[in-house]
Amino acid sequence: MMKQKAMLQFPRSEKCYVSGKVNKIRVGMRRILLQDTVLNTASGERIAKPNSPLVVYDTSGAYSDPLFVRGELGGLPPIREESYAKRKDLCREEASGAYRAKAGRTVTQLYYAKKRIITPEMEYVAIRENQQVETLGLKSYITPEFVRKEVAAGRAVIPANVNHVELEPMIIGNRFLVKVNSPINYHRGTQEPIVEIEEQLLNYLAMGCDTLTALIEQEERSVEETDCLRGVLLRRCPIPVGVNPLLAAAWGGELDWSLFRDRLIALCETGVDFVRLYPSLLRRECELLRQRLLRPRSLEYRIWDNWFLQHKGEENFLYVHFDELCEILSSYDVTLSLGDGMRAVSIYDAVADSLRQEELKRIRELVRRAWDHHVQTMVESAGHAPMDKIQGQIKEIQYMGHGAPIFTSGPLLTNAACGFDAVGMAIGGAQAAWQGASLLCCSEPEEALRGKADDKRAYYKSLIMAKIAAHAADVAKAHPGAGMRDHAICKAMAEGNREADVEALSLIPKRFLKLLK
Amino acid sequence: MMKQKAMLQFPRSEKCYVSGKVNKIRVGMRRILLQDTVLNTASGERIAKPNSPLVVYDTSGAYSDPLFVRGELGGLPPIREESYAKRKDLCREEASGAYRAKAGRTVTQLYYAKKRIITPEMEYVAIRENQQVETLGLKSYITPEFVRKEVAAGRAVIPANVNHVELEPMIIGNRFLVKVNSPINYHRGTQEPIVEIEEQLLNYLAMGCDTLTALIEQEERSVEETDCLRGVLLRRCPIPVGVNPLLAAAWGGELDWSLFRDRLIALCETGVDFVRLYPSLLRRECELLRQRLLRPRSLEYRIWDNWFLQHKGEENFLYVHFDELCEILSSYDVTLSLGDGMRAVSIYDAVADSLRQEELKRIRELVRRAWDHHVQTMVESAGHAPMDKIQGQIKEIQYMGHGAPIFTSGPLLTNAACGFDAVGMAIGGAQAAWQGASLLCCSEPEEALRGKADDKRAYYKSLIMAKIAAHAADVAKAHPGAGMRDHAICKAMAEGNREADVEALSLIPKRFLKLLK
Repeated sequence: MMKQKAMLQFPRSEKCYVSGKVNKIRVGMRRILLQDTVLNTASGERIAKPNSPLVVYDTSGAYSDPLFVRGELGGLPPIREESYAKRKDLCREEASGAYRAKAGRTVTQLYYAKKRIITPEMEYVAIRENQQVETLGLKSYITPEFVRKEVAAGRAVIPANVNHVELEPMIIGNRFLVKVNSPINYHRGTQEPIVEIEEQLLNYLAMGCDTLTALIEQEERSVEETDCLRGVLLRRCPIPVGVNPLLAAAWGGELDWSLFRDRLIALCETGVDFVRLYPSLLRRECELLRQRLLRPRSLEYRIWDNWFLQHKGEENFLYVHFDELCEILSSYDVTLSLGDGMRAVSIYDAVADSLRQEELKRIRELVRRAWDHHVQTMVESAGHAPMDKIQGQIKEIQYMGHGAPIFTSGPLLTNAACGFDAVGMAIGGAQAAWQGASLLCCSEPEEALRGKADDKRAYYKSLIMAKIAAHAADVAKAHPGAGMRDHAICKAMAEGNREADVEALSLIPKRFLKLLK
Repeated sequence: MMKQKAMLQFPRSEKCYVSGKVNKIRVGMRRILLQDTVLNTASGERIAKPNSPLVVYDTSGAYSDPLFVRGELGGLPPIREESYAKRKDLCREEASGAYRAKAGRTVTQLYYAKKRIITPEMEYVAIRENQQVETLGLKSYITPEFVRKEVAAGRAVIPANVNHVELEPMIIGNRFLVKVNSPINYHRGTQEPIVEIEEQLLNYLAMGCDTLTALIEQEERSVEETDCLRGVLLRRCPIPVGVNPLLAAAWGGELDWSLFRDRLIALCETGVDFVRLYPSLLRRECELLRQRLLRPRSLEYRIWDNWFLQHKGEENFLYVHFDELCEILSSYDVTLSLGDGMRAVSIYDAVADSLRQEELKRIRELVRRAWDHHVQTMVESAGHAPMDKIQGQIKEIQYMGHGAPIFTSGPLLTNAACGFDAVGMAIGGAQAAWQGASLLCCSEPEEALRGKADDKRAYYKSLIMAKIAAHAADVAKAHPGAGMRDHAICKAMAEGNREADVEALSLIPKRFLKLLK
């Protein structure tokens, strides 16, 4: 029988699966096979001492499994769906077929954690985070019960929409490996859209991307085409996918709560795992923002700014309908990422001015209210700050967000490195993550000055820099097993003639470097 | 008359010169011309409010002056030589024509600073560092007298060999702008060697490189060719040039003090401004280094390791002849950079083990002895360290080096980011500089794993990342005027329609990006 080749291949590595002890789960990992250490004895004999293989965290999903067979419509196998048949808390919408919580039931990981129930998702992430360090004689504090406690306390989230059945669950929180989020933004190329988006996706997965924010709505593209592409992405994506529902809604016509709600429900039914929203951006502050040296340039902010101008006297409908919003997210276990509209866009505004203070107080209120609805919640942060302010800012957001995980962009440490946001964000992101941020957002290329580059390489470079920053933070925080790759690389380098091992153990395998050329 | 074009042009900028008040000096700076701020009044009138030009630190030398005329042999004008005629402390070697201290006299900046004399070099750097911030209403503590005090205390150095008469003096110290050093390593290309090396030099200068380490000796190249290329570089270089004299000597035959001394004197006569040496690397430690997980891979270390094997019972001749070494450096005012042979090459060795402690004690002794000879001295440091150890390491080296300026490579925060040293060094370098390192060394491309890339782009990228790290540290340390570019960029962005200003103010002008493609 001919040996099948996987779509994604890592050097000297094989796909392996670790089974759950409580739940029927198989956690996909990457096993790196190492060469023997060769010792020369005094008598001139050569003794080969085997090195244990290293099992490492793997974001590549079934694409690195040679036995992978595409499911319906070219998607990944619906690994989570198997257990749904037994569940009494889920039902299916008649019209769409989407899963959602039965009336009066709650299905979020936060709810179960508070009820002291260890879900398959919790056991999955516990196995995954540990990277089998016990085989190397290391100890780890990460058990399924530890995961449950962190989720129950709101200090960690497992973004896992019940409709994203292809998902391999992962966790975001200060006591876990630092994760990296990249925007994915399909650009019209020479290839078919579906081919193009899958190619991009596979590259992100191979380079270790942990979550994606689908920015498909930003292009001039019909709602139908956008929905179709998002669906394709979700069905083929083993990592959580986030969206900005306001952008999705703004493309659909006159923006109000009713239109937004319909779009949000549609997104939840497709399976998006987290939503990035600005319910804390109120009219008054949006107007007062003009006192800052530089106002936000994000599309999200501009939509709100414009909306307030056009709807005199009306308040941010996400704030007004926040409880209803939470009810919707709760029904699908969609994680809420609370954006900070008042974040500084210039290092000169990186002080906790009254606007920022007001917003932080509101975020404090909203985190608590979201938790009351059992909605898993992250707080977004950062923007721009000089290096000496990073620690203080992260600690402040940790306190104001009741310890909810921090999703940070940068911070950028200067406004003068135009065109090199990715570098500034790696320098700032490493420090933010060391101080407690749990998810690092990659920059969109050349955001600040040089127009949005229609260049995939810039996205990949930004991802690699963020991965290095995240790993540096894991090492500095002494996460269990964070340094095992470093150690194995040093050992291989010291012994010589093990270049292939060094290559296999590298964070970014050499073969992916050609994507940057 | 036709307007001449400069060899190096910056957008919306003109070369300007600020004259000294005490000494006959003209400090070359770059003046960035800004567009008007246009205000719309209530009556619909448009009022233009001019913005003051920004005068910024400029490393490009006469190459950005449209009036520049090449001197003898294509070099820069010997701007420092004019004042030499009046000096009673200098004489010329009969054979070579090189300047050196007269017998019984001392010519180093450190000596003059201790004698309370403000040299032209000190006034030059004071003007340069200030970037005319007083025109923006900002205050700076940097006066010629402040410079003198910092140099006298050994906390800053002005590398300026009396034979590098083309040099525009600059200062390295914790209270001054963070500087960046890049290796320059001529690679045989399709062009003439001199054309090639000048092209590289001009690119480094344009991107803001502050000092260069000439690694010309590393290639298979005759001593004569190496000396010729180094001479060409020095005559055309307005920034300090450093060398590793051990490499230069090792290429010349059987290595011993006598051969080394001859090569060192030749290098001093050509005009190198600083030398990087390892007098603290003694036999015993070199042997004991084997207890580490990973030993240094630098050429310098390997030469010593090999030398100790071949010269049983002999000690490092740089340590043995340290006083004589200092006398030579003192005669030309060549700055000594004390390398730390025991630095960690793996994050697992980044603890102050007994070897490192021994070496730091020896460095403490050597700094003091060098100062006794009035030799300006820097201490090299870093290598590898997790983020949580950077602050402690820098403070320790500051203490052990009696406050001498720290010249740091990285530190690299992980061993696992193979092929991406430049990113790790930017993240680590920014923090090291914020904590007190004064000169950041760019990585040699892909040093760790993937063989020395014969790729100029990798050097340029590394330089840009180090420049961003250095600037981020300046901002975090609140150096006078460090944030003025950031502020002006934010203001221009906020006002809109001033993209040309944003472009002109950027740390890395867009036109140099093509060098990275």
